[in-house]
Amino acid sequence: MADLPKSIEIREEGPREGFQIEKEFIPTARKIELINALGKTGLKHIQIVSFVDPRRVPNAADADEVVAGMTTQPGVHYTGLWLNDKGFERAVATKRLHINGGLNLSASDAFIKRNQNRSIAEQLASLPASLEKYKAQNVEIDGGLLSAAFGCNYEGDVSAAKVVDLVGKMVDVARNGGVPFKRLTLADTMGWATPLSIKRTVGAVQDKFPDLDIVLHLHDTRGMGIANAYAGLEMGVRRYDAAVAGLGGCPFAGHKGAAGNVCTEDLVFMCDEMGIETGLDLNALIECANLAEEIVGHPLPGAVMKGGSLKLLREKLQAA
Amino acid sequence: MADLPKSIEIREEGPREGFQIEKEFIPTARKIELINALGKTGLKHIQIVSFVDPRRVPNAADADEVVAGMTTQPGVHYTGLWLNDKGFERAVATKRLHINGGLNLSASDAFIKRNQNRSIAEQLASLPASLEKYKAQNVEIDGGLLSAAFGCNYEGDVSAAKVVDLVGKMVDVARNGGVPFKRLTLADTMGWATPLSIKRTVGAVQDKFPDLDIVLHLHDTRGMGIANAYAGLEMGVRRYDAAVAGLGGCPFAGHKGAAGNVCTEDLVFMCDEMGIETGLDLNALIECANLAEEIVGHPLPGAVMKGGSLKLLREKLQAA
Repeated sequence: MADLPKSIEIREEGPREGFQIEKEFIPTARKIELINALGKTGLKHIQIVSFVDPRRVPNAADADEVVAGMTTQPGVHYTGLWLNDKGFERAVATKRLHINGGLNLSASDAFIKRNQNRSIAEQLASLPASLEKYKAQNVEIDGGLLSAAFGCNYEGDVSAAKVVDLVGKMVDVARNGGVPFKRLTLADTMGWATPLSIKRTVGAVQDKFPDLDIVLHLHDTRGMGIANAYAGLEMGVRRYDAAVAGLGGCPFAGHKGAAGNVCTEDLVFMCDEMGIETGLDLNALIECANLAEEIVGHPLPGAVMKGGSLKLLREKLQAA
Repeated sequence: MADLPKSIEIREEGPREGFQIEKEFIPTARKIELINALGKTGLKHIQIVSFVDPRRVPNAADADEVVAGMTTQPGVHYTGLWLNDKGFERAVATKRLHINGGLNLSASDAFIKRNQNRSIAEQLASLPASLEKYKAQNVEIDGGLLSAAFGCNYEGDVSAAKVVDLVGKMVDVARNGGVPFKRLTLADTMGWATPLSIKRTVGAVQDKFPDLDIVLHLHDTRGMGIANAYAGLEMGVRRYDAAVAGLGGCPFAGHKGAAGNVCTEDLVFMCDEMGIETGLDLNALIECANLAEEIVGHPLPGAVMKGGSLKLLREKLQAA
């Protein structure tokens, strides 16, 4: 039987991923309500807003107000997402966010073109300047993210070899810039991964870069999210992005239907039941999931929020 | 990397599992419509009806009419479920069903009490008589099913050791009765399994009974269905029960929320993408899933029916 990790870290992306895809504007106070509730579940990293053009992502319009209005919890990193200098400057100006200057790239030309209006080569060429800017502002840089790392709705399959090649280029940028590249997020942005491709691609990256700390960012678009996370666990991956209630989806990914991230509380349930520590309170997360569903006003895909936790059921059975 | 099977067989249970849990009566013609559509997807086994008391399961009231009205496809086994002699006799009397006389047991006293109003010991004691009755009628017997094999909402966890013990007792009944016990269905009736408990319990059964052909019957109550199927694939399990669109749930299992079987087309998608043959037409299954959703009149949990097949997307990308 595969050796599963003793503990993992889950980084919550529900508020950012979840609200950005909603068409109706969600009131600022309600966004803050969910963020404040998530801060009390044991999560150490919560990505809460996108500093992007509100003409493209209407629910990002109040990002600054959301950050100003939330109640922070000690020891929790609250983060934001940006795609350009202006967004980065807005994030820094809030003075309440943990700013991490990742080197971000996509494995799909077609996707990065739609998402950021440039090619892989153009994005790669821009990374040294980003890095110098981060260094000049004393922003921490410790790695990066590769989007569409398992396939792209606009381009098709992405091979493990292509991923290894692009990761090598990101590592080179970091090395040439004199900063560490310790952490790599492999993002299945459009839900193309299966447990087998997770194992192949993660395995290929681990073989070539054995010291890299891999993060999996998984979408449940085609129902593979939890199975893919399990495959990651079997490969020893110890960090996962997830979204409470399975909120989310990328507004530029061209999905129809359910497109959210792997569901935080379903992932925590699997880990709890398999003896893998997450440091998170499953019942508190289920309450957050119910709150998220109430806020967006439509059913969300999380399963444990409907099926119920087994811990609670066991306690009830023991008391009876 | 684990050695996955080259091919698997999926047994469809959507019509039986899916309709029995609906409160509103579904017109006979619509039940038949779904069964007829499923018959054209490549499925070789479709469980279509329950011959049970319609006062307890109102949608089972028209079981005989459904069987009489469907259009059978050559080479497809249509089956029904029964819990007592009367149900068995009704199934035989249709003359259109494949009758397989399984030796069925539950790993939970509390569950079998609610479901069939008897204890494990009473059920076990009744098996030799069932077997003799099947033999007297020349009904094929080749194994059995153990329900609640991974846990029970009314009793709690079920250990691999208990499963191995009960399987041994079922094997003994078969041996004493002079019939083969070749096939064992392990049913996660109430969605308690995780990939780890699948591996533990399947592994323990395989160690003790290496020649048994294991079937996994998985429910997605807590979002683990596909991950559990993947764990089964890694253990070499080659047969899975599933339900189109994730239809279903046991009316006596005490679920709230989503309770359906692992979703047929999501499982087929995973297998297709990992190079495991199912013999099934994913696009035809997605059409059946959409039909099922229309028939029950509420959203069903299947993901690929919403996220779309990658085969179609690849064809579109190649044509562009």
